[in-house]
Amino acid sequence: MDTTASRTEHDSIGACTIPQGAPWGSQTQRAIENFPITGIPISHYPEIVVALAQVKKACALTNAELGALTPDKAAVIASVCDRIIAGQHHEAFCVDVMQGGAGTSTNMNANEVIANLGLIVLGGSYGDYGHLHPNDDVNRSQSTNDVYPTAIRLATLSKARVLSAALRDLVQAFHDKGDEFAHINKVGRTQLQDAVPMTLGQEFHSFANTLAEDIDRITDLGRLLAEVNLGGTAIGTRINTPEGYGPLVVEKLADITGLALSPARDLIEASSDLGAFVMFSGALKRVAIKLSKICNDLRLLSSGPRAGLGEIILPPAQAGSSIMPGKVNPVIPEVVNQICYQAIGNDLTVTMAAEAGQLQLNAMEPVIFYKVMETMTTLTGGMNVLNNRCVRGIRADEKRCAELLGGSLVLATLLAPVIGYDAAAKVSKRARAEGITLREACLKQGLDAALVDSLL
Amino acid sequence: MDTTASRTEHDSIGACTIPQGAPWGSQTQRAIENFPITGIPISHYPEIVVALAQVKKACALTNAELGALTPDKAAVIASVCDRIIAGQHHEAFCVDVMQGGAGTSTNMNANEVIANLGLIVLGGSYGDYGHLHPNDDVNRSQSTNDVYPTAIRLATLSKARVLSAALRDLVQAFHDKGDEFAHINKVGRTQLQDAVPMTLGQEFHSFANTLAEDIDRITDLGRLLAEVNLGGTAIGTRINTPEGYGPLVVEKLADITGLALSPARDLIEASSDLGAFVMFSGALKRVAIKLSKICNDLRLLSSGPRAGLGEIILPPAQAGSSIMPGKVNPVIPEVVNQICYQAIGNDLTVTMAAEAGQLQLNAMEPVIFYKVMETMTTLTGGMNVLNNRCVRGIRADEKRCAELLGGSLVLATLLAPVIGYDAAAKVSKRARAEGITLREACLKQGLDAALVDSLL
Amino acid sequence: MDTTASRTEHDSIGACTIPQGAPWGSQTQRAIENFPITGIPISHYPEIVVALAQVKKACALTNAELGALTPDKAAVIASVCDRIIAGQHHEAFCVDVMQGGAGTSTNMNANEVIANLGLIVLGGSYGDYGHLHPNDDVNRSQSTNDVYPTAIRLATLSKARVLSAALRDLVQAFHDKGDEFAHINKVGRTQLQDAVPMTLGQEFHSFANTLAEDIDRITDLGRLLAEVNLGGTAIGTRINTPEGYGPLVVEKLADITGLALSPARDLIEASSDLGAFVMFSGALKRVAIKLSKICNDLRLLSSGPRAGLGEIILPPAQAGSSIMPGKVNPVIPEVVNQICYQAIGNDLTVTMAAEAGQLQLNAMEPVIFYKVMETMTTLTGGMNVLNNRCVRGIRADEKRCAELLGGSLVLATLLAPVIGYDAAAKVSKRARAEGITLREACLKQGLDAALVDSLL
Amino acid sequence: MDTTASRTEHDSIGACTIPQGAPWGSQTQRAIENFPITGIPISHYPEIVVALAQVKKACALTNAELGALTPDKAAVIASVCDRIIAGQHHEAFCVDVMQGGAGTSTNMNANEVIANLGLIVLGGSYGDYGHLHPNDDVNRSQSTNDVYPTAIRLATLSKARVLSAALRDLVQAFHDKGDEFAHINKVGRTQLQDAVPMTLGQEFHSFANTLAEDIDRITDLGRLLAEVNLGGTAIGTRINTPEGYGPLVVEKLADITGLALSPARDLIEASSDLGAFVMFSGALKRVAIKLSKICNDLRLLSSGPRAGLGEIILPPAQAGSSIMPGKVNPVIPEVVNQICYQAIGNDLTVTMAAEAGQLQLNAMEPVIFYKVMETMTTLTGGMNVLNNRCVRGIRADEKRCAELLGGSLVLATLLAPVIGYDAAAKVSKRARAEGITLREACLKQGLDAALVDSLL
Repeated sequence: MDTTASRTEHDSIGACTIPQGAPWGSQTQRAIENFPITGIPISHYPEIVVALAQVKKACALTNAELGALTPDKAAVIASVCDRIIAGQHHEAFCVDVMQGGAGTSTNMNANEVIANLGLIVLGGSYGDYGHLHPNDDVNRSQSTNDVYPTAIRLATLSKARVLSAALRDLVQAFHDKGDEFAHINKVGRTQLQDAVPMTLGQEFHSFANTLAEDIDRITDLGRLLAEVNLGGTAIGTRINTPEGYGPLVVEKLADITGLALSPARDLIEASSDLGAFVMFSGALKRVAIKLSKICNDLRLLSSGPRAGLGEIILPPAQAGSSIMPGKVNPVIPEVVNQICYQAIGNDLTVTMAAEAGQLQLNAMEPVIFYKVMETMTTLTGGMNVLNNRCVRGIRADEKRCAELLGGSLVLATLLAPVIGYDAAAKVSKRARAEGITLREACLKQGLDAALVDSLL
Repeated sequence: MDTTASRTEHDSIGACTIPQGAPWGSQTQRAIENFPITGIPISHYPEIVVALAQVKKACALTNAELGALTPDKAAVIASVCDRIIAGQHHEAFCVDVMQGGAGTSTNMNANEVIANLGLIVLGGSYGDYGHLHPNDDVNRSQSTNDVYPTAIRLATLSKARVLSAALRDLVQAFHDKGDEFAHINKVGRTQLQDAVPMTLGQEFHSFANTLAEDIDRITDLGRLLAEVNLGGTAIGTRINTPEGYGPLVVEKLADITGLALSPARDLIEASSDLGAFVMFSGALKRVAIKLSKICNDLRLLSSGPRAGLGEIILPPAQAGSSIMPGKVNPVIPEVVNQICYQAIGNDLTVTMAAEAGQLQLNAMEPVIFYKVMETMTTLTGGMNVLNNRCVRGIRADEKRCAELLGGSLVLATLLAPVIGYDAAAKVSKRARAEGITLREACLKQGLDAALVDSLL
Repeated sequence: MDTTASRTEHDSIGACTIPQGAPWGSQTQRAIENFPITGIPISHYPEIVVALAQVKKACALTNAELGALTPDKAAVIASVCDRIIAGQHHEAFCVDVMQGGAGTSTNMNANEVIANLGLIVLGGSYGDYGHLHPNDDVNRSQSTNDVYPTAIRLATLSKARVLSAALRDLVQAFHDKGDEFAHINKVGRTQLQDAVPMTLGQEFHSFANTLAEDIDRITDLGRLLAEVNLGGTAIGTRINTPEGYGPLVVEKLADITGLALSPARDLIEASSDLGAFVMFSGALKRVAIKLSKICNDLRLLSSGPRAGLGEIILPPAQAGSSIMPGKVNPVIPEVVNQICYQAIGNDLTVTMAAEAGQLQLNAMEPVIFYKVMETMTTLTGGMNVLNNRCVRGIRADEKRCAELLGGSLVLATLLAPVIGYDAAAKVSKRARAEGITLREACLKQGLDAALVDSLL
Repeated sequence: MDTTASRTEHDSIGACTIPQGAPWGSQTQRAIENFPITGIPISHYPEIVVALAQVKKACALTNAELGALTPDKAAVIASVCDRIIAGQHHEAFCVDVMQGGAGTSTNMNANEVIANLGLIVLGGSYGDYGHLHPNDDVNRSQSTNDVYPTAIRLATLSKARVLSAALRDLVQAFHDKGDEFAHINKVGRTQLQDAVPMTLGQEFHSFANTLAEDIDRITDLGRLLAEVNLGGTAIGTRINTPEGYGPLVVEKLADITGLALSPARDLIEASSDLGAFVMFSGALKRVAIKLSKICNDLRLLSSGPRAGLGEIILPPAQAGSSIMPGKVNPVIPEVVNQICYQAIGNDLTVTMAAEAGQLQLNAMEPVIFYKVMETMTTLTGGMNVLNNRCVRGIRADEKRCAELLGGSLVLATLLAPVIGYDAAAKVSKRARAEGITLREACLKQGLDAALVDSLL
């Protein structure tokens, strides 16, 4: 794009200079200038660009069907939207992800780009809105306040599918290791103290199972996001929509996206409420909490190599230290921990933004969308490296597991049902104090050797 | 209880002095001494005391049925539990809600109290554990690690019913006001700027509807809490349980509690995972976010009396100021806001505690339980006062609503579909700049009077 | 107090029934009825009751000196305040710590109790406010909006002294252990992997030093709390105060409390800003983060007894398990971890409440005060038990420390400056792979034995 | 750079393929592959690249002075560092900001780039480490564990200067408006209810003053960051440093950076503690809380244009609505609110990461640094747009201010000292109920007209 040449548009604020080849208009341009915040354009998340085009297409087709837009204009809008859905023109969606105005800049970015690209189709030129207008045509029967909430729900659901797939793969990796390690007995530990025996396979299957549950949670709570307020326009009263528009536009959008969308039951309520994002972010936080706990465990179990627990060996991903030669660190779990802390922090940002709704709208939607997408993107990336560069390469140190189990006092628990809790506690305490085995302590304590051997 | 006299018990730590009349033993006594933290005993939440007794009864009956406990002992334990379930002896459950040990002190408090009360039934005296032992009998086939997680789930579900009832009443109050105010037209507001018209009734119905959704969420997510790990004992491997114990004990507990309980699918996983509490606390946080937003709105809408929005009038609950006579403040919504901030802070405590699980257990369960109960208790209290001392007494200032709507420029939106967005923006801007009505601006702008009147 | 008999007061809300013997008035009574939230009365934190009395006394004396109150009335008020400062009548400060109204209920509770107790001194009876009025006399030249913020600052500073003392004792305990363990060599660990040698004494001194820094932080940030807005009245414009009142009342309050108080520079700003509490709560959060990290380390270092790191042994505080005899768990560090998670959650509540200020006031002060006090109380309790029931009884397992250090490969670092990082890494890798010592690997790798011995 | 050609390096993990023209080595390359997380390279924050070069230069010069590095090598390293400090080669610092390994990838990225660029200076080629080695020479006497914590402190302090400047400018803008509005009387509001009179100038000066305090806090707490652990190497025991190195290297670094740096008193403690970042992030959170409150106020005060408070008019930054023509929204304050919520969420991420330190290190430093830098960058951007695109253009609606003040009942407060609180409350209540002025209510209540006029 020629950045030296420019054209001028006029809006209610005044004149506005736009780079010559830019397919957007004054409102996008003003947003670019008003929000130099993160440097991350909305196209960084292609899901939102696609979602906006899907919404605009559904609206154009509905408007045409109900006589609120000429078939010609609707066809042009729909064809431009199809190209965007197919991945073209994304670079024109350039307003900052962090923006004031409850998403108006994002919506107007879409309206202006679609209008301008449509004008080219119609043989016109950029800015010639008399033939196709960003507000009067592309945004017909719409408000940012129903378009934006709908589009960010679609984009979130789209990204959630990618996240779920990564989660599913990771679950499989843990199950595979669970099967591989099914025969390895080891000490279970509660409160970091030796508890009772288990297998390393059980430990890895539990990692798999705890994450597997979250695939269900994400699906369940994703369902709340499939309830959209499209058709409510400004505040949910359906102002400026033709008769019958509301249910029809949601139906068309469901067709276009292939999602089981439904209209919100109370459109007024739906205009200001972000509760579905709060729950969804909460589900992501739950994934983060579990992943973080698992990574903590992997780091603990692989601690050593000589002065730690050392029951498992993580595949070396890179040299661990600039000063300590040969040191190998659990860098993959460590980066996942950090991703999880970010996810938890982001959930707080979502919480505060959701609480900040006022009267008929929540103007803080953009940061909610941004943070949810950031969390999903980095969690997905983290789960993929954890899967491919760590879990699949984990090896067990069977000898170490056996050694630690053999030397432990954990079988005192088996004595209790027969000799009683108090007597068993005495044996265990003696073994610990004298540095002897449990069996030795039993005999010293005067228990019958045959009985002891039958129990342990 | 005579606090000067005392008796002595011995355990693996050594001798322990207990107040003469106290129906507990050394482990409870040591916990009292180890954890002088909040001063709040577990009996502050009677739900947990009842839940512990329900669990202990289910275990005793199951043990008896499977031959792991004599019928006599089981009968004594069950009868003591029944008294506790009926509300007796709660004062003996006196360990601090905040405690180390993953709930062992709570579980042993229950074991010791039930054993000692049982000993009295058997004609014995406190501490005479040869006839009924806290660990060997009352805790038979159990571990803190399955008893405590199960009991706190039951208690949480019990409290959730109370919370849901308060929520349901509040929803009804908002709906009633919605009906009462259905005829009052007013300005809708987005981003605190005048938007398009709506009714005050719609506004109040939206408060009702947004909260009503959360009754469903609490029920849904409560379901996750109905999956219990009872029968898993120490780490989920069922060590020290008789054949067939696991499914049977959950069945009995379901009978006793009337809840649709089911055994966790992976008992190892269930021993360390607090994910269900994370989601449930997340649902409570969602309620808090919504309540806080609604209270903010009530305070905004009632701002004034002369220099604010003043569309509604809250019932005066108390004099508002020590220095400004006649000032009336929205004290009820304000206290609810604070309760909500506490709920959100508590959710963070739950989050951090849930993340802190290690290997086969999460030792931080007590603070999770405590904070979830605190949130539910205060949210319930807050919703009740909001309902009874605020919402039900709200009056509308119809004159003010009409005045603000009449003077506003919000109907410019209706012009746009006919005269176009840009022309309508010009009219609106002119009206704003010149301090005139929208109609006047239309005429000054040269629009046809008849057309204008047909649109506005 | 006779709870069946009652008397009636009238205020702008209407008639109000008060228990006969209660030394409070209608506003306190209404607050009791409006805020049945936590069940915790403000007198739970005696520091706030004392602080209120100190403020009321300073105001009365200043008013008298400036002719705004008769000397007689001032003397009565001061004498009642002295009794409260000395610990009497605290039970009459009974409104809930969680309340709407920005502290008006707390301030009026003080005004009414002081007025009524003063009336008795004057030979009158409760409610006979013609002779001494809660608002016109006790609250003379004051508003809740300067009294309450001032009083909660005084109370916080008072509690901070207790916290700092507990922190100082804990620091000393860690230093004592640092000295005791100064001779014990052990493996240092970074990222849970064996790093380079250090002493156990260094490890414990580092616990001491990191906490010692926080004593300074609490003192520094406490200084921000010593800037008070007393004299600003309703919104900081000094309305209804006599000439010269502002500086004089702060001077008198400084005398009464012995604190280096100063008047806020911008009283308007000071009326709504809670920034000093945000920073102070942040400092408490920092203590919590450090304590939690230290407790995590204590639990790691004492993990075992046979299948963990086992370098130190915590004193047994209670039996660890209801099912596993002889198990001893690190229950004291665990409860401290939970206290820390609560402190971090409370900091979030403070954050949200501080952000919720609007225009000339922040109505959410009560929850800020409550949560800061809760955090200080539980942190203090936690540090005391950690000190007395854990740290002071910690023993080192010297044999284990030596064993782990001897078997480790951590000295490869010493080779690098001489043979180079890459060669040293090869040696270390070989030792790890073949399960041999570093020295053996060096020789196998062809290094000169004398050189190796001189380096390691 | 030719991305098709490549060269191969070998390290302890094995062979590694690197793009031909890339001036980095195998450890950087592996990090690129291990951490595809955010897509944000460390060079996104030039401050960290400069800081790394400053540290490396200080170390090289110190090593040379103490005979641990040849003068030739030190000179080459220093000259390369000078170019980096001057802004060259930043694109070679390409590892992800979010990484495992406690910053080892960042440190090795620096070591490898400096070594390779140095090799070119020496007439060699990339990868020819026999002549200048990333670890043995560039990283001489260093560990990631002292280099990385030191460098992120320097970078944070550097960015803090930019933030403080933006803050200072914003403070000035508010003061300027405060002066401009000094003559405008208006209603003060507490708890959103009309309180007592003030000027609009006082309101804006209070915005300035509350933010001005934070410049001091950032400076104060920045001082904690100036204590560095450089010279401590791996865990703070100074392993592999020459005699006298520690104090000297910090002195040289202070010279190079012009900052008043000092060595940490306990290097062991300093290796794992992130307390200084916790406090600094807390100070940023405090800025965010205050900015958010101010933006909320600006939005409230400018609410309308017809049905809100309307006391001030924000400069229109862009069209406010896609459907409502002429609507202008407070988009700049809204984006700042969102930036503030992000800052608060980021502080939580910092909190969790800081708590996750273990034993001799905190491996989670990278996310702490990343989030602190993100917060500072976006807060700075937000304050700049708030200043330039909002505050400086704010106009007062003097007529509206006067109107609201005139109609209000707020002067009832002035009656109280004379007629008493209870009588004044009655007057105020009557005025409110009957919709009359305060003066009218006084007269109806039988007060003397002359007295009333003298008071109001």
